Amino acid sequence: MTPALIDAAHTRAQGHLALTPLLNAPLLDRLAGRRIFVKAECLQVTGSFKARGGWAAVSALAGSCAGVLAMSSGNHAQGVARAAAAHHLAAVILMPEDAPEIKIANTKAWGAEVVPYNRATTDRDALAREIAERRGYAMIPPYDHPEVIAGQASVGLELAEQARAAGVSEAEVLVPCGGGGLAAGIALALATRAPGLRLRTVEPRGFDDMARSLATGTAARNARLSGSLCDAILTPTPGRLTLPLLQDLAGPGLVVSDDQALAAMALAFRSLRIVLEPGGAVALAAALFSPDLPATVICIASGGNVDEQVFTEALRRHPHQSHSPEQSPPAC
Amino acid sequence: MTPALIDAAHTRAQGHLALTPLLNAPLLDRLAGRRIFVKAECLQVTGSFKARGGWAAVSALAGSCAGVLAMSSGNHAQGVARAAAAHHLAAVILMPEDAPEIKIANTKAWGAEVVPYNRATTDRDALAREIAERRGYAMIPPYDHPEVIAGQASVGLELAEQARAAGVSEAEVLVPCGGGGLAAGIALALATRAPGLRLRTVEPRGFDDMARSLATGTAARNARLSGSLCDAILTPTPGRLTLPLLQDLAGPGLVVSDDQALAAMALAFRSLRIVLEPGGAVALAAALFSPDLPATVICIASGGNVDEQVFTEALRRHPHQSHSPEQSPPAC
Repeated sequence: MTPALIDAAHTRAQGHLALTPLLNAPLLDRLAGRRIFVKAECLQVTGSFKARGGWAAVSALAGSCAGVLAMSSGNHAQGVARAAAAHHLAAVILMPEDAPEIKIANTKAWGAEVVPYNRATTDRDALAREIAERRGYAMIPPYDHPEVIAGQASVGLELAEQARAAGVSEAEVLVPCGGGGLAAGIALALATRAPGLRLRTVEPRGFDDMARSLATGTAARNARLSGSLCDAILTPTPGRLTLPLLQDLAGPGLVVSDDQALAAMALAFRSLRIVLEPGGAVALAAALFSPDLPATVICIASGGNVDEQVFTEALRRHPHQSHSPEQSPPAC
Repeated sequence: MTPALIDAAHTRAQGHLALTPLLNAPLLDRLAGRRIFVKAECLQVTGSFKARGGWAAVSALAGSCAGVLAMSSGNHAQGVARAAAAHHLAAVILMPEDAPEIKIANTKAWGAEVVPYNRATTDRDALAREIAERRGYAMIPPYDHPEVIAGQASVGLELAEQARAAGVSEAEVLVPCGGGGLAAGIALALATRAPGLRLRTVEPRGFDDMARSLATGTAARNARLSGSLCDAILTPTPGRLTLPLLQDLAGPGLVVSDDQALAAMALAFRSLRIVLEPGGAVALAAALFSPDLPATVICIASGGNVDEQVFTEALRRHPHQSHSPEQSPPAC
């Protein structure tokens, strides 16, 4: 992983990806007792940051294969499917049968062939290898791949400039973490562009393989592969590329509950007017509900592909609470 | 109304307002059979474009009064309250008792004093004049005021540049319309900056005073003042400043139903991951469901301050529909 690889991926993506805004809201600052900024990757094309890594990997391959294959519960699927369509490549995506309906539908809408599998009974990796070999397709791993990490790093390139424009030079950057591709990419970009912004990963409780791996220095595994609403970031163990990078560049990992993620979704709806999925809301949840964070925190809101039932449940469980009129007016 | 007034308001707002993104989604294009861009003013500070006009009017006044007073069902309220707080001015806001709870709460959170009134039984204008005179406060009208129109015009300044960057030189720009301040401001800005972008107003069915006024050339009145979910854009009649401007600069007015606005909210949730209120979604509804629009349409999504009950109802009434697999993949 070199700065040149990150810059090259960024250059190839010009005009094909959105520069997502850095949002903030006085309501969130007041609730948390700290300044909170939110990098809204839910507004990225395909609804998540995965469009960045997908574009980087597919654009690096173009011309060398008949098609691409990816395994994904939905966000990587859409990122790869969109990039493949734009490069006139066929795309096969292996998706778990229980992936959110909206993610399956959107992946198909990008023209990809979706192959469903059962998380418990199918050997997903073997099935993927078989299809890729038979058809001559290139595999695009979801996180443990230099081009994918280089693509996600563009979040960090943008953030370094946006934080500077907002007058923020010292902060913690909280990043939702599955395999660690987004976190590793951002950490690499910030290390050279904004060294005062220090990265921390955020995971759902019970799926904190990265936090435990960072604490002990060896790759830990999760006991389960399902059972959290945060479907986008449930991975068995950190990547072989991402863990060493984050050991060098990240602080201790944070963990939040599913209910805290739902509360963050409701607050983002109400105060930022953005739609987050549970896995995309864990960093905001940590910023709102974790003790011992610094005065300024930047959260990556990594995705917004959520079925309406889950979103409605977040609003139902966490309804609007009237503000106390004694609260002082926020500064602008 | 002069270009200099617009430019001066824009300059005074630098660093105090968001430059909102211009979004698009293949799903919306496919549904509508045309290219749709969405200027996401729901991501503006305070959750609507009204922060622009509020800032322009209050910043023009600063130093000349003890405080400000506004009448608003909620979005203008928040825009004025925020600007007043930033300029260390007191703010009194007259709000109808049936305004959405979220808007009342957010207005109070900005430090404003909220005076509720009954839409049917209170003489709102008399009450406002009485309070303003007694306290020495300046009235900030919601739309029929040169500084307010000049402030809203900054949406058009940004849009002219964003459309150029997206390669769009010919399009219709659909704008949610209550009193016409946003539409008039944008039309003025586009007339000089992007003359190929032609403006059309959009109103809820039964509250189409602007469309009827534009058709006949004389100010029409709505028969009712309530009875639509689009609370943000229910006004009795066009403004005395805004109507002549729009007669010069706008095409025929468009009208949509409340249910079309709810459908647009559900589609914006699903494909753009933004939160819209009904009144903020009428332009997108027109872009999706009106016949006889050109190949490229830009919608202003003017606000996102919506109670969760209304939002949940939009998702319930307009659930996700699976895409047909025969649909071709979208171009990027």
